[in-house]
Formats: sequence, structure tokens, C-alpha cells
Amino acid sequence: MSRINENFLKLPGSYLFSTVGRKVREYQEANPDKRIIRLGIGDVTLPLPPAVIGALHAAVDEMSVQDTFRGYAPDLGYEFLRSAIAEHDFKSRGVDISIEEVFVSDGAKSDSANIQEIFSADAKIAVCDPVYPVYVDSNVMAGRTGIYDIAAGRWSNVIYMPCTAENGFIPDLPQQVPDLIYLCFPNNPTGAALKKEQLQNWVDYANRNKAVIVFDAAYEAYISQADVPHSIYECEGAKTCAVELRSFSKNAGFTGTRLAYTIVPKELVVDGVALCGLWARRHGTKFNGAPYIIQKAGEAVYSEEGKKQVAEMVGYYMNNAKVILDGLKAAGYTVSGGVDSPYVWLKTPKGMGSWEFFDYLLEQANVVGTPGAGFGPSGEGYFRLTGFGSYDNTAEAIERIRRLV
Amino acid sequence: MSRINENFLKLPGSYLFSTVGRKVREYQEANPDKRIIRLGIGDVTLPLPPAVIGALHAAVDEMSVQDTFRGYAPDLGYEFLRSAIAEHDFKSRGVDISIEEVFVSDGAKSDSANIQEIFSADAKIAVCDPVYPVYVDSNVMAGRTGIYDIAAGRWSNVIYMPCTAENGFIPDLPQQVPDLIYLCFPNNPTGAALKKEQLQNWVDYANRNKAVIVFDAAYEAYISQADVPHSIYECEGAKTCAVELRSFSKNAGFTGTRLAYTIVPKELVVDGVALCGLWARRHGTKFNGAPYIIQKAGEAVYSEEGKKQVAEMVGYYMNNAKVILDGLKAAGYTVSGGVDSPYVWLKTPKGMGSWEFFDYLLEQANVVGTPGAGFGPSGEGYFRLTGFGSYDNTAEAIERIRRLV
Repeated sequence: MSRINENFLKLPGSYLFSTVGRKVREYQEANPDKRIIRLGIGDVTLPLPPAVIGALHAAVDEMSVQDTFRGYAPDLGYEFLRSAIAEHDFKSRGVDISIEEVFVSDGAKSDSANIQEIFSADAKIAVCDPVYPVYVDSNVMAGRTGIYDIAAGRWSNVIYMPCTAENGFIPDLPQQVPDLIYLCFPNNPTGAALKKEQLQNWVDYANRNKAVIVFDAAYEAYISQADVPHSIYECEGAKTCAVELRSFSKNAGFTGTRLAYTIVPKELVVDGVALCGLWARRHGTKFNGAPYIIQKAGEAVYSEEGKKQVAEMVGYYMNNAKVILDGLKAAGYTVSGGVDSPYVWLKTPKGMGSWEFFDYLLEQANVVGTPGAGFGPSGEGYFRLTGFGSYDNTAEAIERIRRLV
Repeated sequence: MSRINENFLKLPGSYLFSTVGRKVREYQEANPDKRIIRLGIGDVTLPLPPAVIGALHAAVDEMSVQDTFRGYAPDLGYEFLRSAIAEHDFKSRGVDISIEEVFVSDGAKSDSANIQEIFSADAKIAVCDPVYPVYVDSNVMAGRTGIYDIAAGRWSNVIYMPCTAENGFIPDLPQQVPDLIYLCFPNNPTGAALKKEQLQNWVDYANRNKAVIVFDAAYEAYISQADVPHSIYECEGAKTCAVELRSFSKNAGFTGTRLAYTIVPKELVVDGVALCGLWARRHGTKFNGAPYIIQKAGEAVYSEEGKKQVAEMVGYYMNNAKVILDGLKAAGYTVSGGVDSPYVWLKTPKGMGSWEFFDYLLEQANVVGTPGAGFGPSGEGYFRLTGFGSYDNTAEAIERIRRLV
């Protein structure tokens, strides 16, 4: 008799973004004349850059002719893309990553959800609070997280590392030592970034305790300050304790095009076993490579033209973030993020709850953001706005918020 | 201290196709003047059909303009594709599948590897022998399969269902009742197909025993006989016991383009829980949708033009399969498959082992096939050839084999 994986039933029922979507829909239906501006989601809005579009068309043409048609891709990615990644994302920053350490995939969401598979069933995980929900939910499904306390919004067997104004949204090293540490910097949702010596502390802690860091660097392209590392491998010793997740979504606008990669260094050995071998086996068994045409699009991101166009897109979004940051500051809000990240994290005014402020902003300014509490209990009393909208909408939204005060 | 998932270490080390690749490479290096013909792999060789190419170019153009750019896709697939699937693959055959039961993904390999996640950790699986390795390997990684007996080539906690000449390559219903039954028909590697009443037997067995069938119909497009069902849902009661995997790889040539889908009927309830909800949650947490441009390419497969072009491609490969089947028969080989499938399964002559025949064919005819033993112990003494090559190569390969006799 078949039985289900009961861990799935432990997952809390409502999704943050579906609740947001429902509330916005209901408000719009009740107020059809209002023009709602959405600064809530983390999705990009600019079209793919011309270099990428050109590469896609060329690759499609290759697929139309027998001589250049491509069947099954290598499970781990085409060499042309893996070598472009190693060269432009790492060697150019003085980090030596070989192409065998680059594992191409269909997205950082998939990678961040799947990476737990190569660790033991009783691995204890540590996550920032607030946090991107996939890290925890994928471990819930694997049965690692214990019991969910609805009132506290926390799992009994997860180490939470609060990121609040008190610690500048930078987590403290946990007292109880985890086996697996998820770190996302520049951070979603707070927009905080780690300086090199702060990240070095984490690397040293992980090496000291034989823990593994899953370093999610999806927002790396948004780093503007010189002392913020773009890769964890800029820190000494990181290759023996960290995997790094990267994405083409937020730099080159691939959220709907799907391409990402994970670095698993050869030196990363657990229980005497190199994790890169386990990850390769996982890819080889459960994944069949990213589409050829999408990998060619990824390669074009590293062309001279592509790099310039991507930098312009990132600049556009970062200008929006600055508009939000400066505008809210001028309006008396307490804000952070927005400097090395497209996310601005604001303290809700007058002690309002996150969801209370969500309703207030939706109804009074017709602006949609994301309640901080949706990312974890330490997000309560905070609110996320993103720079991924259009400039005109962003500027108008901030003007509307300023008029509220 | 971090620990690995030790189940990964239980996996046998060598891959079937990498061993094949190494042997071919070594032979070619030693004999650079020989022209080797490869009829071993299951990869397509014809370019993408024009309707698909046109849809890809159009979708790329949409991604280049802000107004038509698409960011994150719906996790479960765009409605335009899900409704085309429900209409053309099911309703047109009298099977009522709603779009909420269609889950679009990046490939049937991923789906067939991931589907086990929604079942209990102690689920007992049954597989055909010989079999596509992913079904078993994904369960090995999840810790369900017990201990591997190298000599027997079998796991202690897996129910094997031999498919041999004695049963016409159609498995018998297992004595010990499994929880999860993997069936792939038309079959890879044997090329055998199930008649409707044979598949109905399996559906009845699964319903009687509350087992779930994972029905892999990746080769559905190759069915030529009227009494062979294209979908398991043509059988009465299948919606309460079966999920079905489909792929765009083998019909429309998407092996390097990556698109597939799984049907999870609403009526499929295990432990009082609808599996479609669990699978949706799995997709929502661990997958971020197939690329927009690839989903548009999938939609084009269902256009009038696309259907015609796909039928031509399938016809081309099936003609190759017929050339192999007829040629080998005429040469005195015992062969099966090749009628509802691009795969021809032949009995090795003179009691040769599978690998012995592989070497013999490589050295004497410079033709590459796949040793049956690579798919499981009951594949010993058999050999797989595929219709996915070019016509000229296929005809020449068969001529070379005939000359051997």
C-alpha cells in the first residue's frame, strides 16, 4: 500500500506571495479606478539585453540545421559556458575556480532546494531570520526540521539566526553548531551585505566546526562597495567549507529564461568524500542539463557587449533602489539595504505590524510591498520594497508614500 | 559536523554509457581509419521542426521588448501550454484531463527522478528488469533500496520484474506487492509495448493493492498499433492509481531543449491526500518553471503544422527501426521491438554475452550498440539498437552486420 511523504503535510499552508496576490486582487476589484504600483516582487522587468537576444536567435538557428543541431547536453553544462564562468566570474577577481567545479543548472531556486540531498538525513541546518523560504522548506520535505510552532513561526530542529537592526542585519555566529549553514549575501530580503572580514569570520567558523556553508550569491551583481566580496572564495579557506550558488536571473534578467550554476570546490571534502563527486552524481541522475540555446544565452552575458548591457540594467535597478532609499529617508523612515542590493528594508512606522503596514500602504498609497513577517518572525515590523520596477513607477510610488506622512 | 548522504556511496560506480563511450574512443584511437556508426544512444539527430523553430524565434523577440518580456513563469507551467497538452494529448483521445492535472517540467528524467520524493521513505518499489537506470538510482539516493549485490546486479529491497523472451518482454504481476510500480511502455530498452488489456491488468492490480503506478510514456509517439494505448488513462480506473510522464524529447526532438510534463489526476489520493497537491508543492518549492521560450516551442508542437512535422520525424526514425528489424531478421537474428518503439532488442547470437557482442560488433562491423546487461541482469544476452541515427548510416550499419554472418 502506497504511503505519502508526511513531511510535506508539515509545511504551513499559505504562501507569502499568494496571500499578497490575493489581497492586491481583492483591493483592485473593489477599487477598479486605483492605479496600483507593485514594488513587492523580486522579479525583473527590463527585457533581455541585446547580446543575449542575438545569442538566442543564433542558437535557435543552429537547432534548425542537422549539422549544428544539439541533442542531450552534458549533464553538468557545456564547456563553453563553464569556462566563461570560471574566467569572468572568478579568475578575473583573482579566484581560481576550474571548470570541473562549475555545475550549470536551470536555476538557483532548484540548486538551493536540491543541495541538501547530498547531506545526511539528520543534518542540522542554520538559517538567517528573515530568510528566503526555499532553504527551510526543502529541508522540511526531507524531514530534517522537527515540529513547526505556528505561534512562533519556527521549526524545532532549525537553528535560526536573527538579523535585526540590533546586529545591523548581520547574523551572529550560532552558539549551537549547525552542520549546514545557509547564507545569502547580499541578502534577500534585508538587502544587507557582508564585508570581507565578516564573511571570513563565517568561513573560519565553518572550517573550525566542520560545517558546510551554502553561500547564495544570487545578488552579487548589485554589490557596489569595494570591501564587499563578490564570491565567498575571496575568503581564505572557503574552498574547504563552502559551496556557492549563482544565478543569471537578477543580473541578466533570466528569471523567466532559467540558468544558474553552483560552485563545488574539489577541496570540499566531507566524511572523506569530495562533495563535487556527489553533486555531479546528483546532476547525472536527476537532471539532464540546461537547454543548449539557454546556455548559449548565458555565454553571451560574458561577452564585452553583454557585460556592458548587464551593467546598465543593474545600474537602472540600483538607481530605483536609491530613489526608494533616499525618498523614504527624507520622509523620516528608518531604512537599510539598497546599496549592494536591489532590496530596501524599512522599519514600519508607529510600531505597525508588517501586514498592517502592507494594508495601510495598499489602501492609502496603492503601493504593494512585501511584509517582512512573511520571511520569518524576525521580519515582523519590517517591510521590503524592490528596485525592480520601472523608474517612473518607482518614483511615483515613493512620492505617494511621502505624501502620506 | 557535516555528514554526507551515505546512500550516494551505495551507487555502483560505472555508468553504462560512459563505459560504452570509453570503449568506442579507445577503439577509434587504435583504428583511426575505421568509420564507426553509432546506433547505441537514445538521442535524436534530426533538427527541431520548422514550426518549433519559428515559435522559438518569435518568443525570443518577445523577450527583447519590455511590453512582452516575461519574468518568472508559473511554477506549474503556462496555461497556454497546459491547455494545449490537455486538449491534444488527452481530450482528442477521449481522455478527460484538466489543465490543473498537467505539471510542466524541464524533462521526464527530472520528473521520473523526483516523483519518489512525495512518497514515504519506506516505500517499496518495483521495476522492470531491464530498466532505465534513473528509477532505481533516484530511490537509492533516497535510501529505499537496501543493499546492492554486485554479482546479481540487484538491490535487496527492490522488486524486480524480469522482462524476457519467455514473457514476451511484458512483466508479470509481482507476487510481493510493491507500493510504487515503475512501468515504461513502449519500453526502453526492449521496445515492447503493452496492449490495452495488458495495461488494464496493471491498473486493476494497482487499485486492488493501493499501489501507485508511475507510467513513463516518453515513447508514446512511436505507437503504431491500434490496440496499444497512448495514455494509461485510456484504462478504466487509472486516475485513482497512476501518474503519467510525458516528454517532448523523442517526438519533437527536444532532448537538448528540455520540456516534459507529468499528469497527476485529482482522483489520485494516497493516505487521504491528493498527490496533485503534493506534486504542486514540490514544484513550487524546488522548481521555478520551464523557460517561457521553451514552453512556446512546446505549444508549437501542437499546431497543425507542428503535428505534421513531428509525425514526419517519428516516421523517419520508425523507418530506420524497420530497416534494423527487417535486416536483422533476414540475417537470422532473433529480434523484437521496433514496431511501437524506435528501439530494437536483439538476442545476441551463439550465446554471446552482451558486452562480448558489443566488442564483436564494434571490432568486426564498426557499429556501436548498447549491451542489454547495462540495463539490468535480465538484459544479459540481449543488445539494443536504435532508430535515431540517419537513414544512410542505419542502412549501412545493418548491411555491415549482415555481412558478418
